[in-house]
Amino acid sequence: MVRAILLGSGYVGTYLAVGLERIKKGAVAKYGIPLSKYDLPYRVEDIEIVAAYDVDLEKVGKSLYDLGRNIFGEDYDVPETLKKVVVREGINLGSTQGLPFRTTGLEKKYPLKEAIDKLIEEWINLKPDVIVNVITTEEGTAYSSKDEAVDKILRGDAPATHVYAYAAAEYAKRTGRGVTFVNAIPTPVANNPGLLQLFEESGAVVFGDDGATGATPLTADLLEHMAERNRFVEFVVQFNIGGNTDFLALTDPGRNKMKETTKSSMVKDILGYDAPHYIRPTGYLEPLGDKKYVAMHMEWISFNGFRDSLFISARINDSPALAGMLVDLIRLGKIAVDKKLSGTVYEVNAFFMKKPGPLNSKNIAKTHAYRQLLHWLGLA
Amino acid sequence: MVRAILLGSGYVGTYLAVGLERIKKGAVAKYGIPLSKYDLPYRVEDIEIVAAYDVDLEKVGKSLYDLGRNIFGEDYDVPETLKKVVVREGINLGSTQGLPFRTTGLEKKYPLKEAIDKLIEEWINLKPDVIVNVITTEEGTAYSSKDEAVDKILRGDAPATHVYAYAAAEYAKRTGRGVTFVNAIPTPVANNPGLLQLFEESGAVVFGDDGATGATPLTADLLEHMAERNRFVEFVVQFNIGGNTDFLALTDPGRNKMKETTKSSMVKDILGYDAPHYIRPTGYLEPLGDKKYVAMHMEWISFNGFRDSLFISARINDSPALAGMLVDLIRLGKIAVDKKLSGTVYEVNAFFMKKPGPLNSKNIAKTHAYRQLLHWLGLA
Amino acid sequence: MVRAILLGSGYVGTYLAVGLERIKKGAVAKYGIPLSKYDLPYRVEDIEIVAAYDVDLEKVGKSLYDLGRNIFGEDYDVPETLKKVVVREGINLGSTQGLPFRTTGLEKKYPLKEAIDKLIEEWINLKPDVIVNVITTEEGTAYSSKDEAVDKILRGDAPATHVYAYAAAEYAKRTGRGVTFVNAIPTPVANNPGLLQLFEESGAVVFGDDGATGATPLTADLLEHMAERNRFVEFVVQFNIGGNTDFLALTDPGRNKMKETTKSSMVKDILGYDAPHYIRPTGYLEPLGDKKYVAMHMEWISFNGFRDSLFISARINDSPALAGMLVDLIRLGKIAVDKKLSGTVYEVNAFFMKKPGPLNSKNIAKTHAYRQLLHWLGLA
Amino acid sequence: MVRAILLGSGYVGTYLAVGLERIKKGAVAKYGIPLSKYDLPYRVEDIEIVAAYDVDLEKVGKSLYDLGRNIFGEDYDVPETLKKVVVREGINLGSTQGLPFRTTGLEKKYPLKEAIDKLIEEWINLKPDVIVNVITTEEGTAYSSKDEAVDKILRGDAPATHVYAYAAAEYAKRTGRGVTFVNAIPTPVANNPGLLQLFEESGAVVFGDDGATGATPLTADLLEHMAERNRFVEFVVQFNIGGNTDFLALTDPGRNKMKETTKSSMVKDILGYDAPHYIRPTGYLEPLGDKKYVAMHMEWISFNGFRDSLFISARINDSPALAGMLVDLIRLGKIAVDKKLSGTVYEVNAFFMKKPGPLNSKNIAKTHAYRQLLHWLGLA
Repeated sequence: MVRAILLGSGYVGTYLAVGLERIKKGAVAKYGIPLSKYDLPYRVEDIEIVAAYDVDLEKVGKSLYDLGRNIFGEDYDVPETLKKVVVREGINLGSTQGLPFRTTGLEKKYPLKEAIDKLIEEWINLKPDVIVNVITTEEGTAYSSKDEAVDKILRGDAPATHVYAYAAAEYAKRTGRGVTFVNAIPTPVANNPGLLQLFEESGAVVFGDDGATGATPLTADLLEHMAERNRFVEFVVQFNIGGNTDFLALTDPGRNKMKETTKSSMVKDILGYDAPHYIRPTGYLEPLGDKKYVAMHMEWISFNGFRDSLFISARINDSPALAGMLVDLIRLGKIAVDKKLSGTVYEVNAFFMKKPGPLNSKNIAKTHAYRQLLHWLGLA
Repeated sequence: MVRAILLGSGYVGTYLAVGLERIKKGAVAKYGIPLSKYDLPYRVEDIEIVAAYDVDLEKVGKSLYDLGRNIFGEDYDVPETLKKVVVREGINLGSTQGLPFRTTGLEKKYPLKEAIDKLIEEWINLKPDVIVNVITTEEGTAYSSKDEAVDKILRGDAPATHVYAYAAAEYAKRTGRGVTFVNAIPTPVANNPGLLQLFEESGAVVFGDDGATGATPLTADLLEHMAERNRFVEFVVQFNIGGNTDFLALTDPGRNKMKETTKSSMVKDILGYDAPHYIRPTGYLEPLGDKKYVAMHMEWISFNGFRDSLFISARINDSPALAGMLVDLIRLGKIAVDKKLSGTVYEVNAFFMKKPGPLNSKNIAKTHAYRQLLHWLGLA
Repeated sequence: MVRAILLGSGYVGTYLAVGLERIKKGAVAKYGIPLSKYDLPYRVEDIEIVAAYDVDLEKVGKSLYDLGRNIFGEDYDVPETLKKVVVREGINLGSTQGLPFRTTGLEKKYPLKEAIDKLIEEWINLKPDVIVNVITTEEGTAYSSKDEAVDKILRGDAPATHVYAYAAAEYAKRTGRGVTFVNAIPTPVANNPGLLQLFEESGAVVFGDDGATGATPLTADLLEHMAERNRFVEFVVQFNIGGNTDFLALTDPGRNKMKETTKSSMVKDILGYDAPHYIRPTGYLEPLGDKKYVAMHMEWISFNGFRDSLFISARINDSPALAGMLVDLIRLGKIAVDKKLSGTVYEVNAFFMKKPGPLNSKNIAKTHAYRQLLHWLGLA
Repeated sequence: MVRAILLGSGYVGTYLAVGLERIKKGAVAKYGIPLSKYDLPYRVEDIEIVAAYDVDLEKVGKSLYDLGRNIFGEDYDVPETLKKVVVREGINLGSTQGLPFRTTGLEKKYPLKEAIDKLIEEWINLKPDVIVNVITTEEGTAYSSKDEAVDKILRGDAPATHVYAYAAAEYAKRTGRGVTFVNAIPTPVANNPGLLQLFEESGAVVFGDDGATGATPLTADLLEHMAERNRFVEFVVQFNIGGNTDFLALTDPGRNKMKETTKSSMVKDILGYDAPHYIRPTGYLEPLGDKKYVAMHMEWISFNGFRDSLFISARINDSPALAGMLVDLIRLGKIAVDKKLSGTVYEVNAFFMKKPGPLNSKNIAKTHAYRQLLHWLGLA
């Protein structure tokens, strides 16, 4: 069994929990889980969500079953097994600032250090193998050293993600069990030298940053397609608009900048030159819901100077795409723990993440990252 | 120097000749030539077009310079060096049937065997390293043995492409110099067991079949993108319409079937299941010219049963895309001759061809074929 | 009340019946019914489907409720009121030739004239105000006179649609009640001088031909948009592919030609010149179902010779779009009967039909046809 | 002859001047000029650009011929007749703030009132019939009365556009000749009660605001298409990105808000309900140049609750589209002067403008506005 904790009980977390339980009962196929066609040491069915956290007052105290009901409606098959996972109160620290819901946070009830300790104690009881961070994108910077990281985190001068990362490292150190922290949002953890040092010294692993779903990996593979034909890409435009909380949050410039940064290295890394590009989350429109609209356009120079054009329009369910990847990341996280690894694993990050850590790693085409991942797993 | 002969002096051949000469004089960059960023034994500038053939009475006797003028207009920089390549009369055998131009053909002036012998003698004088077949797509079937192939070809019961392939093999055998026959059209040569045996026994090489440009390689890489995420592709639609002779020819059902066959294996080979698909050249509309319009649509099932949609619209210059690939195929053809290879080279075909020979080879994603090609060349 | 008979019980007929009953019970809004926001003499709820016909052995004898169940599945709300409409056996005459289902037909059991008489007698009992033809598209030609029409129809040298049209005219003549025949398929009725004369002399009305749904009216309005800015349209491409019986039927060249003809007049009528175009149903792909995929592309010349490009991708539910229009056509048909009209009504046809009758009528932009229709109705 | 003055000598102004001269010499057809197929009292060839203004130091003192050379390059046919129109120094007042070029401005050399007087005197000599405002979009608000308008303008508390509008009104009043001020940018003039009163009392006419080119009129006509079928539009997304100065200027939030406002009334005015929408200029990407990329997506509910989707991708030359419309607006402006009109003309604005004045006018579909315009002209 693989024991997983969810930080954040929004769309992604709920879709993940519901999808996993539906797979277990045979109600749905294992599509959207990249490695499900290979034999890994752990099956998809081996994953157990042992706890979920949030700071939204509408969620804390409710079960994942209740949250599934809210999202999918009364007619949908939400497995009753999710009734036993009740959402716990997490760390807030302004991670939900500006968003239209009433929130709580452990640090509002206890001094920060005490709040963190409470969290670690809970985790010691829950015995997670993997802790998955899917809270709303928040602003955050990198630390140059472990000391700077710990200092700022304990002083309250850090985003919730970094507090969670610190707690995970502490949990690993105190229990000696090891743990993998999967950072699926852009706030830098695997690309954060200070936190990475902390993980290495604590015997913990981090996968990150920013789960590579949606249009960005598609753009990466399209750019590779151009590069392999030596076409000269003149420009790339990629718009994204959605109606879920993540897009609402990204209308805030600070959060948006987080997202842009994770996407920007790709163009130069793959093409070998920094083709002019406009690639970013563009807006929020409520009725689009979780199924975002992506519009892309690129032009390139072909043989003898001729110019070609490509236009892409897509509707992509944002949360399920990420949830499917998390299923593998949880299994890979447990494998990393079993292997007694610490720090981060580029081979995992390069395929699954928009900004693969460690800092300054190359952002290669996803299709080549996939081959490297299979190789790392001994599958190719 | 690499000496190349063009069979067919239409758009592709003319674009190739014009582009090469413009590169030689520094008028245009080497975009659209996949391997131009690597160090191969032969540079792009080393290629010399030593002869060109056609059966269109409007072309035979004119120089490639004249043809370039006709296509690109008076204001375009068509290099004067092309004045010295005068289009020679080739084999017809009905390859232009139904197309709206008056044609000739060596076999109309001489008995077929004599016509073929005249051709081979010309080639012995021209000393080609590579012979490139870019005549209009014609119907043709595979032969089970060399004997069947030779018998049908000499009886006149074969398309022009097969006569040219036979002449290339004979040329290699008689001179002992070796030669590579690049078959850039769908009529089966590399996928033709009888012809392949002929090439093997004659010390000649064939690359083929059907140059992989335009929408098909893009579709291949997109399907690989889906497969690597274990998304279940429900269907694929791909329309193509253009205004060049190739599209006009494909309005003929027999020729169209040739094209469809080369595209059909891809879906199953890459996805692992035969997703329902409609992938074919769809029509001819004159004002589109050589810049075809491609429309694609696919849907797939993501995690927990959600359905995503993708739509692609593109305008792609058909002939330059193929011409750029031919630049590399000519250089690779010379390398194969230098290596004294015979038969075919899957590593070359898998990347450059829509239906890579030999018969029943796997039609893998182009991005993986690219890696294999670099490996075969000792470049990765 | 408006009493309507359906000829053809496929997707369109079933969607119409199910949608009407769901509107009556308040389960769904009146979207997709063009005139539902205006006050007409008859409300949507006033329509009663009094009978339905078909020749598919899987349908004859089943109720519209059963057919709704087959299409929409067990979980869908198919109103039980449809249990009382049992599909009757209609005229076949090869209208289903080549389609993959076993068929019957009144003319197989009785001599043709007797079969027609039986039909008319049924109608005399059913007292329809409007008869709606939505059988599968079939080949058919126009007749120059009533006599030619009647002669060919009674000799069995006519498609099922023409037999039905004849029966409708006879029904009107014998009862003196008047009736409107709505021809929603391309087989010419309103554009058929012989049949039109027959309707005029029988005191019956025909609306037709070929219900204007999907991409064609959109193209019409886009072309008008270009014309109103005096942009010079260089070409128009419009592909359509679907997975319903209509698209399957259109893979037959004869039926396809019917469809093409109804679309071809539009370009010249709206632009004032015949811009090169490729507009036609392109193929059949089963998993698309009733929701067709439409791809369009056009380019035009703007001020000072600049060239602009437009690409459209759409997924459109084919049958509901037509069903919504039929709701209005049935109400307008009854209004025409009340007004004691005979022959056809261009103002109705121009908005609702792809090829508005009578023959050689102008195919104007739908948006202007809409204004004319409102004017005819005294609503604008 | 129609004498026109250009305020702003950027892309639009230069394209207009170059296109007009090329039409005069027969080098290009009159495409993109909406009314060029009708017989108006003034021909396209009757327009004379008698002066042009700007504040960019790279433009002032150069001829329109020089500016044409800069934009179109050495090989392009820029008519030499444009050498005689030398760009004059205009009013700046911060209209170019934040843009990357060095600027000047009459008000920097003279006290504002004196600067305005100099301008009016120049115009009295130039005798313009029409003054066209195509300066870069700038922020600006409406005035409730003529007095407030004049007061703020003379105090320097107004944007350049308003100063120009005031000068035009004064010119009309002092000369008694009448004049039409065409405001092709979003800064409110025709929608500005204070300025409108000023025009009315001065015997001048204003057409405005914000020339309706590109994606917005297309969206308007598409929404009308939906409304006429009573489809329920669930949402509309429309992205725009370009590489000209206008898009660069719109990255400034204040200017962008001007643009958004002119587009927002359309959805509700046409559909009858305010469908959720995201319609705005999205970004700047230099290599797109003047040919902007537009991406649109809408979904709607059809009959019986089915949902359809539409995606549009387009590349549209921004400046020529507007320049073509200005040709007609100049001719219509002269017609209005001939008719001794004052104030504004809704029939002109409704077709040609994104936000037709006067304030609170209905923003109807362009296709219906076109009919009304023809009617106003006595042409339909």
